Amino acid sequence: MTDRITLAHGSGGKAMQKLIEEMFIKYFSNATLVQQEDQARLPLSLFNITGETLAYSTDSFVVDPIFFPGGDIGKLAVYGTANDVAMSGAKPLFLSSAFILEEGLLLSDLEKIVASMAKAASEADIKIVTGDTKVVPKGAADKLFINTSGLGAIPTQIHWGADKIQAGDKIIVSGTLGDHGATILNLREDLGLEGQLTSDCQHLYPLVEALLPISGVRCLRDATRGGVNAVMHEFMSSSGCGFELDEDALPLTPAVRGICELLGLDAINFANEGKLVAIVAEQDAEQALQAMKQTAGGKEAAIIGYANTANQITIKNPFGGSRWLDLPNSEPMPRIC
Amino acid sequence: MTDRITLAHGSGGKAMQKLIEEMFIKYFSNATLVQQEDQARLPLSLFNITGETLAYSTDSFVVDPIFFPGGDIGKLAVYGTANDVAMSGAKPLFLSSAFILEEGLLLSDLEKIVASMAKAASEADIKIVTGDTKVVPKGAADKLFINTSGLGAIPTQIHWGADKIQAGDKIIVSGTLGDHGATILNLREDLGLEGQLTSDCQHLYPLVEALLPISGVRCLRDATRGGVNAVMHEFMSSSGCGFELDEDALPLTPAVRGICELLGLDAINFANEGKLVAIVAEQDAEQALQAMKQTAGGKEAAIIGYANTANQITIKNPFGGSRWLDLPNSEPMPRIC
Repeated sequence: MTDRITLAHGSGGKAMQKLIEEMFIKYFSNATLVQQEDQARLPLSLFNITGETLAYSTDSFVVDPIFFPGGDIGKLAVYGTANDVAMSGAKPLFLSSAFILEEGLLLSDLEKIVASMAKAASEADIKIVTGDTKVVPKGAADKLFINTSGLGAIPTQIHWGADKIQAGDKIIVSGTLGDHGATILNLREDLGLEGQLTSDCQHLYPLVEALLPISGVRCLRDATRGGVNAVMHEFMSSSGCGFELDEDALPLTPAVRGICELLGLDAINFANEGKLVAIVAEQDAEQALQAMKQTAGGKEAAIIGYANTANQITIKNPFGGSRWLDLPNSEPMPRIC
Repeated sequence: MTDRITLAHGSGGKAMQKLIEEMFIKYFSNATLVQQEDQARLPLSLFNITGETLAYSTDSFVVDPIFFPGGDIGKLAVYGTANDVAMSGAKPLFLSSAFILEEGLLLSDLEKIVASMAKAASEADIKIVTGDTKVVPKGAADKLFINTSGLGAIPTQIHWGADKIQAGDKIIVSGTLGDHGATILNLREDLGLEGQLTSDCQHLYPLVEALLPISGVRCLRDATRGGVNAVMHEFMSSSGCGFELDEDALPLTPAVRGICELLGLDAINFANEGKLVAIVAEQDAEQALQAMKQTAGGKEAAIIGYANTANQITIKNPFGGSRWLDLPNSEPMPRIC
């Protein structure tokens, strides 16, 4: 049974110390983490602070299955939290990472996930500086859950926020919608579309960096659970503005369009893990769109609508009709992220 | 079923928004959290920085049962992470809090736990500034797991670390040992000692603050999973020093002493949730001990041994004998915290 996680791996003794050293320290190694104090010690000079405000966020990840085309729970845990930090304008710099492991989890699966986290973090120049490991008995959790929290510093001149949105502003999405949600749905419902669907799980800071110089940017948000629709409702609640979307303008891959037609679902409610919604003043919208299109991860960016003074969200169909976009009580699927 | 958590509560739609507003925002309310951005925005001025280094830590909490004498999983989640931050000398200021909820969890249980977190945070002047909620289907987790991460700023003049320990330094514990571990063990094994055992779950920063002015303090660590024994082994590994402990000097309540004799276990391996180990230069040890004794949570502080040049940890018994203290491969119990 040495190829599987045992309760001893979480109990504060030798077995846990060995797991920490041979798995987490080995893959995540950096000067802060190897000190193995109970807390990371981060000199403010490491933040390259040009501003005086930190961005701080957390997410837990419980996605099922833990491996999927385009990613795994580890890559998701790194970029999911990094993206939440980045939406403030901050470059994500430091992450914490805490594992809840089910007794019996294959050590080889854990190692694949930890290696994937290390690769994702390294590619985004993010350091995992503190962590925690818990093990629960078989049946008390499903395989593994990962929590990450993250830190960055917001540049002085950036004050983005949903409360800044004004009527007339344009809505830009950074690429095709619903890829992550459709990928997980296909695996879980066995729809047989493997090979055509890939999660969009990716780091969004490069797109944020491209938008930093554009003064008309009001706010950004990554469209995860609940999709673009949930973001529009959050923006309506914070700004008091309504929004009109153009169904024809929504960028969708043929496979996602297919899965939606097959199941009668709406891609605008599907989760993304590498797409952001930007609200930009009308006069700067084209510049923002071009900046995104010239950045990796933003080639298929599109203007999909605009803010107005109505207190509702509507979507125009290609035949000239229009319908209200309600926020569903829930998404069709649990454990999407 | 509206009195229980459903999958809809975690799916990014209306039900989740309602839970966030009526539970988390209601109890944790503060100016940062109510903005409901995807990240907390923390001006550095809020850190009251006298130093230039942040302390940053995380822990997940999976304790079973979720309610116990002296606390619950929520109080544990607040003070557990706050204490890890505090051991650096930093006052814990901000926490993130992320919930993984099992479908079917009673909303009344969740509310009790959230209220307990709010009370614990408020009493320690800590703000919960960002969070996350996930729901997994019944059977994919056991009731609820909570992750917290925490931030504070380390005062300029403080540079504590296990690598500073020198032979001759004294080992001080802040009070009776093993209370949390014995309390959970009693509940789980139905030993019938209710009424005599209470978890020591508490905020340790007041003790830390009392130690800040004492120049001979080398390092602090809270003795959680693995107990004081695990801390001594970590200190040995970081400092190269060995330690000799005096069994007669270990502060134990009669109930913990009884449970150890009953089961043939060693309280030095039991988890604490409100006790720290301080290593202090010999000439300042008495001053440190008195400072702790005069602070709430430190009345039963005791010097329990000293550092030496041997590369081993030994414990002297009252009859003059001495034995090696090995680090067990694992603690007797999973899900202690």
